[in-house]
Amino acid sequence: MRALYLAEGQLTLCSDYPRPEAGPDEALIRVALAGICSTDLELVKGYAGGFRGVLGHEFAGVVEAVGSSVAAEWVGRRVVGGINLGCRRCPVCLGDGPEHCPNRTTLGIHNKDGVFADYVTLPVVNLLAVPDGVADEEAVFTEPLAAALRIREQIAVRPAARAAVVGPGRLGLLVAQVLALAGTEVTVLGRRAESLALPQQLGLATALVDEEKDDSFDLVVEATGNDAGFAHSLRLVRPRGTLVLKSTFAGQAHINLTKLVVSEITVVGSRCGPFAPALRLLASGAVQVRPLIEAEYPLADGLAAFEHAARPGVRKVLLRPDGS
Amino acid sequence: MRALYLAEGQLTLCSDYPRPEAGPDEALIRVALAGICSTDLELVKGYAGGFRGVLGHEFAGVVEAVGSSVAAEWVGRRVVGGINLGCRRCPVCLGDGPEHCPNRTTLGIHNKDGVFADYVTLPVVNLLAVPDGVADEEAVFTEPLAAALRIREQIAVRPAARAAVVGPGRLGLLVAQVLALAGTEVTVLGRRAESLALPQQLGLATALVDEEKDDSFDLVVEATGNDAGFAHSLRLVRPRGTLVLKSTFAGQAHINLTKLVVSEITVVGSRCGPFAPALRLLASGAVQVRPLIEAEYPLADGLAAFEHAARPGVRKVLLRPDGS
Repeated sequence: MRALYLAEGQLTLCSDYPRPEAGPDEALIRVALAGICSTDLELVKGYAGGFRGVLGHEFAGVVEAVGSSVAAEWVGRRVVGGINLGCRRCPVCLGDGPEHCPNRTTLGIHNKDGVFADYVTLPVVNLLAVPDGVADEEAVFTEPLAAALRIREQIAVRPAARAAVVGPGRLGLLVAQVLALAGTEVTVLGRRAESLALPQQLGLATALVDEEKDDSFDLVVEATGNDAGFAHSLRLVRPRGTLVLKSTFAGQAHINLTKLVVSEITVVGSRCGPFAPALRLLASGAVQVRPLIEAEYPLADGLAAFEHAARPGVRKVLLRPDGS
Repeated sequence: MRALYLAEGQLTLCSDYPRPEAGPDEALIRVALAGICSTDLELVKGYAGGFRGVLGHEFAGVVEAVGSSVAAEWVGRRVVGGINLGCRRCPVCLGDGPEHCPNRTTLGIHNKDGVFADYVTLPVVNLLAVPDGVADEEAVFTEPLAAALRIREQIAVRPAARAAVVGPGRLGLLVAQVLALAGTEVTVLGRRAESLALPQQLGLATALVDEEKDDSFDLVVEATGNDAGFAHSLRLVRPRGTLVLKSTFAGQAHINLTKLVVSEITVVGSRCGPFAPALRLLASGAVQVRPLIEAEYPLADGLAAFEHAARPGVRKVLLRPDGS
C-alpha cells in the first residue's frame, strides 16, 4: 500500500509499504480522509525524539476487516478512532484511561503507524462509529475537536468569563467555537489582520494580540505553540486567571515565571479529548468545521500537501487516499 | 527611628529615619520581632524593579497609637498584619480582596515602608490580634505560614495523594507541615543530605531530589525559586498531576513545556494566604515553627543579619528592634 513514511526527519511516499494486519481485537480500516496537524509538521522537524513510521493521526475511514475476537458487525462501518493505545493493564489505564499510560503507543506519533496511508489498524476499543449525518469532511475533525473539548473536561468554563484564544489557526478556531458554546464571550487574537478574517467569518469576535491590554481576560487559551504566543497569553490573563496550553511546545521555552506566581495564575496543559461528544457536536452542527478546510490532496501528492500545510496562516490540509 | 533602608540595591541602616504617623484608619505599631524572607534577599538583588524604602514584611508587634477613626481598644494589642494594602474601591478589592488590587502597595515590597524598623504603620483592617498563647517568636511566622496555607485555598489537597515539597528551606518546611495536616504523605526533597536533617527532626519524610523517579508524585510544591528546582518539580509530577509554584521566581526561566502539555500538568502560582487560619494553627501547636529559627539579631546588627540569612541552607533569621 502507499504510505507517507517518516525516518530520520525525512518524509517519503512509499508505494509498497506493507499493508498492516488486524490483530485479534483490532480492525483493519481503509482510510477515507486524513488531516495534517501541526504535530505532524513538528514531528517532521524532529519533535518527540524522532518518530519513525507512517505519520498521521486525524482520520475518518471504513472498517474493512476485523480480528478474530471482534464482532463482524464492525465491518463496513464508517469510523473515527482515538489515538492513544494503552496497555489496558496498568493502574493508569484501569483508572483514567489510555491517554497517559506509561506503556502507550500513539497513532502516527509514537511507535504506531498512522493514517497517512491506504490502511491502518486500531484496536476496536479505540473506534467510534460516525453518525450518518456527519460527512467524512466533518468526521476528520473529530480528533482535534475532541482535543478542544478536553479543556471543558479540565476546567469549568464560566459563561460570564472573558475568554481569549491566542492563535487563529486550525486548533484555535475549534477551541474558540467550543468555548463560545458555553455562552462565553470569546475573542480570537492574531498577530495580523489577515489572520482574523476566518474567525470573523465564523462569527467570532477578533482583535490584534498586540493591542490587547495586560490582564484583560479571565481565561486565555494558548494555541500557537510558540514562545511569543505563550508570552502574550501570560501577559493577557488576569490575576488568579487561567491559562490553558493547548498546543504542544517543542523544546525549551523562555518564560517569565514572576507573573505566574505573583498573580497566582493557573496554567493547565491540555492534550487529547473525548471523541463521542465531538461527534455529537459535529452531528448537531453546533461546531463549523468545513470553513476550516484549506485544500484536499490525493495521498499520491502527500509531499506537496505537507509543503502546503507548513505555510503560515494555512487552514486544514486533507489527504484522500482514493483521490488518485 | 532606626530602619533598614533599601535604595539602588544598597541596604543601609539609618539611625534617624522619620518615624511614620498613623493615618485616620491606621495603627502605629512598634515592631517586636521581624523575619527575613527570601523575597527580602531577592529585593536586595534587584527583584521587582528595585524597591526603594524600608524592607521587611514578616513581623509581630504592638499597637502604640491609632488614627482618629480607629477604636482606642487597639492600643496595646499584640498584632500581626496582612501585607497587601488595596485601594478598597476597585472591583478586585470589593470582590476577591486586596491581594491582587492593581493599585495596591505591599508592605516592604512595593511603595510602602516595611517592618525592619522600630515602627511601622498599617491600616487596622490589615491587622489581627495575636492570641495570648502565641509568642512573638511564633507569631512572626504568621505571614509565611499563611502563604503556605494559600495552597489549601487554591487546590484540594487529597489525603491519599503522594505529595512532595522540592526545597527544604524556610517556606518549604511550612508548606510540608501544612500538607501533612491533610493526612497526606509528604516527602521533603533536597539536593544535599545535610539539608534534610531539619525536616527529619520535624517528623517529615525526606529524600534526595536526584534519586526520585520521574512522575512519582500527584502533587509537587516548588519551594526553591530557581530553575533547577522547577525542572525537578516538573519532572517529578505525574501525568495529570499538580505543580504548585510557591516561591517567587526572579526573571526568566528556561522551561521545557512539552511535558506540561503532553502530560496535562496543572501549574498553580501561589502567593499570599489567610492570616486567621495561620494564627489558629500556631495557637493549637499543629505547626512547629520554633525549630525553623536560625538566629536572632538586634536591629542595630541588621546588615550582619542579612549576610547570615543569605548563606545557603540557613533557616529563619529574626530581627528584634529592642534587642539593642
